[in-house]
Amino acid sequence: MSKFWSSVVNNLKPYTPGEQPKVPGLIKLNTNEHCLPPSTEAMAALGNVSSEALRRYPDPESTALRRAIANAEGLSEGQVFVGNGSDEVLAHIFQGLLSSNDSLVAPDITYSFYPVWAALYGLKLKTEALLADFTIDVNRLLQHPESILLANPNAPTGRALTLAEIKRLVDSNPDRLVVVDEAYYGFGADSASSLLTEAENLIVTRSLSKSHALAGLRVGYALGSAELIEGLTRVKDSFNSYPLDACAQSVATAAIEDTQWLSRSSALVTENRDRLTQDLRDLGFEVCPSLANFIFVQHPQHEGRDLFEYLRAKNILVRRWDKKPIANFLRITVGTHEECSALVQCLKERCAP
Amino acid sequence: MSKFWSSVVNNLKPYTPGEQPKVPGLIKLNTNEHCLPPSTEAMAALGNVSSEALRRYPDPESTALRRAIANAEGLSEGQVFVGNGSDEVLAHIFQGLLSSNDSLVAPDITYSFYPVWAALYGLKLKTEALLADFTIDVNRLLQHPESILLANPNAPTGRALTLAEIKRLVDSNPDRLVVVDEAYYGFGADSASSLLTEAENLIVTRSLSKSHALAGLRVGYALGSAELIEGLTRVKDSFNSYPLDACAQSVATAAIEDTQWLSRSSALVTENRDRLTQDLRDLGFEVCPSLANFIFVQHPQHEGRDLFEYLRAKNILVRRWDKKPIANFLRITVGTHEECSALVQCLKERCAP
Repeated sequence: MSKFWSSVVNNLKPYTPGEQPKVPGLIKLNTNEHCLPPSTEAMAALGNVSSEALRRYPDPESTALRRAIANAEGLSEGQVFVGNGSDEVLAHIFQGLLSSNDSLVAPDITYSFYPVWAALYGLKLKTEALLADFTIDVNRLLQHPESILLANPNAPTGRALTLAEIKRLVDSNPDRLVVVDEAYYGFGADSASSLLTEAENLIVTRSLSKSHALAGLRVGYALGSAELIEGLTRVKDSFNSYPLDACAQSVATAAIEDTQWLSRSSALVTENRDRLTQDLRDLGFEVCPSLANFIFVQHPQHEGRDLFEYLRAKNILVRRWDKKPIANFLRITVGTHEECSALVQCLKERCAP
Repeated sequence: MSKFWSSVVNNLKPYTPGEQPKVPGLIKLNTNEHCLPPSTEAMAALGNVSSEALRRYPDPESTALRRAIANAEGLSEGQVFVGNGSDEVLAHIFQGLLSSNDSLVAPDITYSFYPVWAALYGLKLKTEALLADFTIDVNRLLQHPESILLANPNAPTGRALTLAEIKRLVDSNPDRLVVVDEAYYGFGADSASSLLTEAENLIVTRSLSKSHALAGLRVGYALGSAELIEGLTRVKDSFNSYPLDACAQSVATAAIEDTQWLSRSSALVTENRDRLTQDLRDLGFEVCPSLANFIFVQHPQHEGRDLFEYLRAKNILVRRWDKKPIANFLRITVGTHEECSALVQCLKERCAP
């Protein structure tokens, strides 16, 4: 506490990111990093960052990166906004767009940063419970007049809505903003981006952290109408003109352009995910059907907290939340084949029937 | 305009950064980049960033970088906050600390981002005119009860207050926050950081953009009491947990640790600055005494606007503001010896007596 803290600081409950321990030999399946190294094209771009590029200010508009994203999506550059991770992009969406109303609605079980941003910008966050199978309840969301924010696939469940369901939300009211957080894009879920050719009330956010194995690079983006993107750009230019450094711009551009890497590595993750899902079901686990690079599981005979501690003692880190109705669940990142095998072997020793 | 823009977006007047044109052969003296390439140790650190470092989330607390800064300043790690350029750091200071009051006071001629942040966070920015020689008027600032924000050296004048003058502001009222923006640290001005061992109401901000020739890396920091830094950390963790990517953390740490580079390259810049000052005075220019890596000049017989356009036609870019009382002035970045010579030669053709 300090007399110099503003009221917003006094009232904040900051987000707590997943642990990043530096333990030798740790199998780290707690923060949903991609299990493969990033594209070699991206690493080559890093090697080409010159001392002159670091001496000069970077392009404040990240033009090359926005062009690469626009090309990949069939959109114009004016429909692409980039930021320092999709967390920064979402924060600007809260301040610049969602704050056009006093409140918004989101599922109650979702990315735990949403209530933090709502508090930071003085917005009331209304929530709707998930259905019993952890699917987002579209009908209940539609009963609210407010803007809608959801993650698709949702975290930490991994369940995704179909494009038709997202379209229903978007089409229900052109005066209602719908924000679809696609942080887990690329692992099999439908993207809402195809709706952007018509919808003026839709913003889609993405991250390179998971889909492109670049969590260390901090690059995220938003896709939307030119008017919505201009609103975000105005916020950015009133906060920090240069959100992406020269390294991030170069590496991210190369990563986006390497579309072969994305399709090949996503195929491997989904293959590992589906095998891991089956292996854990064979051990009696209930596994949510996931379209992300993690799975959300519980075991009817073993408490989530016990399994979490057991795995931790075996040097395997997963994630859980002490919160109903998910307190018994573990969220497990899809690792490499070897990491998944080690996890399954460990759990077999504890849970085999 | 969009119906989805929040009121804050509708009312913003975003900051306009200096031009970054890509013109072959341009002598670019408009945005105060350092004239030398960054430390070779820093570039070596960039070469050592691994694909694994990019795959994983970066350290959300930038521990190694904060430790390096703390060591360099004789402070504890808890007294150091880092962010995505000092612009982001200052934005958090506005939201987290300066907003503990409704208003603040700053010189009227200073960094033009200050009024933008004040508007973004709903603060009233009161201003006090500079003295006739463009020195900051300490006596007038002290007549206000509000928090004080100033750049030292000031931009775009280059003039600096002494440590004793800063101390007078800080000591005048322990209940008043004083923010000293030392973006142009390292070129001869006193730093206020030595006051931090006693003062609880002082925040000092720095940037690696100028002093360390790393404008492309986007790294800035704040120094203050542990309580003030904790307030900033709470804002950061409610906005974006990972402001610095893996590249920025590694390169900045190496740059801070290369203290020899800082002293040698700063000596060269000050040498070039002092020679350029004398050369322009010889051509009849009035040159503000500068302790930054730029000079602020006017010529009694030539209009600033005309000289700006003349230089631009000769492929030399400097900066000016269409604003009283500085409309006749040019702000010129201290370039390499060759760049300064080319500038002087050009101006000699136009202004020689």
